[in-house]
Amino acid sequence: MDIAHPYLMFLGDVPDSLAAKTALGVVDWRREWCLGQLRLPGCQADAGLPEMGIAEAAAKGVRTMIVGAVNAGGRLPDHWVASIVAALDAGLDVASGLHVRLGSIPAIREASERNGRKLFDVRHTSETFATGKGSKRSGRRILTVGTDCSVGKKYTALALEREMRAQGYDCDFRATGQTGVFISGRGVAIDAVVADFISGAVEWLSPAAADSHWDVIEGQGSLFHPSFAGVSLGLLHGAQPDAFVVCHEPTRTAMRGVATPLPTIREVVDLTIRCGSLTNPAIRCIGIAVNTAALGETEARTYLLSLESEYGLPATDPVRFGVAGIVARVASEFGTP
Amino acid sequence: MDIAHPYLMFLGDVPDSLAAKTALGVVDWRREWCLGQLRLPGCQADAGLPEMGIAEAAAKGVRTMIVGAVNAGGRLPDHWVASIVAALDAGLDVASGLHVRLGSIPAIREASERNGRKLFDVRHTSETFATGKGSKRSGRRILTVGTDCSVGKKYTALALEREMRAQGYDCDFRATGQTGVFISGRGVAIDAVVADFISGAVEWLSPAAADSHWDVIEGQGSLFHPSFAGVSLGLLHGAQPDAFVVCHEPTRTAMRGVATPLPTIREVVDLTIRCGSLTNPAIRCIGIAVNTAALGETEARTYLLSLESEYGLPATDPVRFGVAGIVARVASEFGTP
Repeated sequence: MDIAHPYLMFLGDVPDSLAAKTALGVVDWRREWCLGQLRLPGCQADAGLPEMGIAEAAAKGVRTMIVGAVNAGGRLPDHWVASIVAALDAGLDVASGLHVRLGSIPAIREASERNGRKLFDVRHTSETFATGKGSKRSGRRILTVGTDCSVGKKYTALALEREMRAQGYDCDFRATGQTGVFISGRGVAIDAVVADFISGAVEWLSPAAADSHWDVIEGQGSLFHPSFAGVSLGLLHGAQPDAFVVCHEPTRTAMRGVATPLPTIREVVDLTIRCGSLTNPAIRCIGIAVNTAALGETEARTYLLSLESEYGLPATDPVRFGVAGIVARVASEFGTP
Repeated sequence: MDIAHPYLMFLGDVPDSLAAKTALGVVDWRREWCLGQLRLPGCQADAGLPEMGIAEAAAKGVRTMIVGAVNAGGRLPDHWVASIVAALDAGLDVASGLHVRLGSIPAIREASERNGRKLFDVRHTSETFATGKGSKRSGRRILTVGTDCSVGKKYTALALEREMRAQGYDCDFRATGQTGVFISGRGVAIDAVVADFISGAVEWLSPAAADSHWDVIEGQGSLFHPSFAGVSLGLLHGAQPDAFVVCHEPTRTAMRGVATPLPTIREVVDLTIRCGSLTNPAIRCIGIAVNTAALGETEARTYLLSLESEYGLPATDPVRFGVAGIVARVASEFGTP
């Protein structure tokens, strides 16, 4: 899956920003790839891009229209189909994060075939993977892991990619979720892979590379989440990370969507090392990334300092304070570029 | 997925018994469901059933023809199609453990539609699952886990079902692999489920039950297998077992299909308890099941005694010595029926 940019972001007519969070995430990290947004009457989300019709987008060189919004239920509303068909007729590819496959809608499939354009369903995978091999690959890898779902694993990985590149590292973000796939133009929604191939898909996603190359792999779920831990473990084994960063949200008391209590950061560090050492015996934790949005700045700084002291690791909020401290740890543990 | 029995076992023209191991496993455990076998010229496998044509099978009340053999590559040979179509035309359903979906072959799909008969592809699932909830369900559960793949988890679970029923327990085997699904007529090939739904599928497979009811759930893979540990962890969380049995093959030095060394039984016990306590804090190990086929009888007995002494748990080879010792442990830990 290689999604060509620049993008036109299709927001449909969703009722709020949350429904367009995929689009907003792409704009956050790849503003330069996003030439405009297409909104239908009544749309309450705004990605802050120039309003742009399909003809104009095509004229300006847009290659792919991203369906970057979800309506209730994750279905594709009938009245979005005309815009998608028009994009295909104008020579654009179309990529979607919806559960429904674009190609399952006859008008869309026909338009794609008629125009020889590609359809990308990033929640599905058409790639055939091998089962994981577990053998060590060349190149270095960082994985972001979490005490829970939705605690900043994607954001932290992208922030690490940006900071490491700025410091001269040869470094690539590797996407394992739909928004990440749009942000990098490739990747695999790992939770959509058939269970037998989780670790194999990650081995494919992060192949052998030069010794000095770093992949920063987006984590998913949590080893302690009763719904998704299988995905997290397969991802850990396939990623065989040299280093990992634990992501955490300190005000949460139960795991997202279930009644299970949150694990401690210590528990996550310990179990990640224990399980991760199966495919990389040298695995180590190099930092803690905390979403402190719910804390005041002083409170956040105090909390992060207490974590640094407790764990002997850099602790930061990537949004508020950046990830330079974690990259310094990469340098001290693994060397500068 | 509810597969009606009795069965006709279709063995095709496979070159050896290994290629028919699904059929042989079904006959081992459900001989009374298997009325006959259908073999094509040159077939070198033999399930020990009466040779039976399709017309005779239909006349004798067979409800489903099981494609219980795999040719090289897991594909469906063109020259097997006629037998499958004939079975459908004779009013039988057809169930297959091949990777290819029966319905993807036009002649088979048309025959199934023409006759209103069902096609079962047990390596695939058409069921829609919810994500796992992780909350405690009523009823008791045993899970078989392994130091590796193919160390007797299915056999041990079936032996436990048989012995527990013989002792008066209300008990059901729950299949998570293709042969197990044929043996019980239902279940889900858990490694074929989309990764997000592993634990949810197991919650569906082993629903809330009477307090005195036992499910014996077939394990898959190993928490220590780098290809499949994600499946094993999701299965553990979804099964939320009260008790587990570790299955082991003592002469193996590397995990099946990879170069990773085998874990010790102790490591498997410890990690299973650590991870399993997420959805059942009372999880405990109640026994060790060893495939001693490679050992002489004296050597096997000595080895099992040494395990009993080391772990303080019943240790047995279910094939050679039965599982009464493990069921006695169920009684002492959880009570008699």
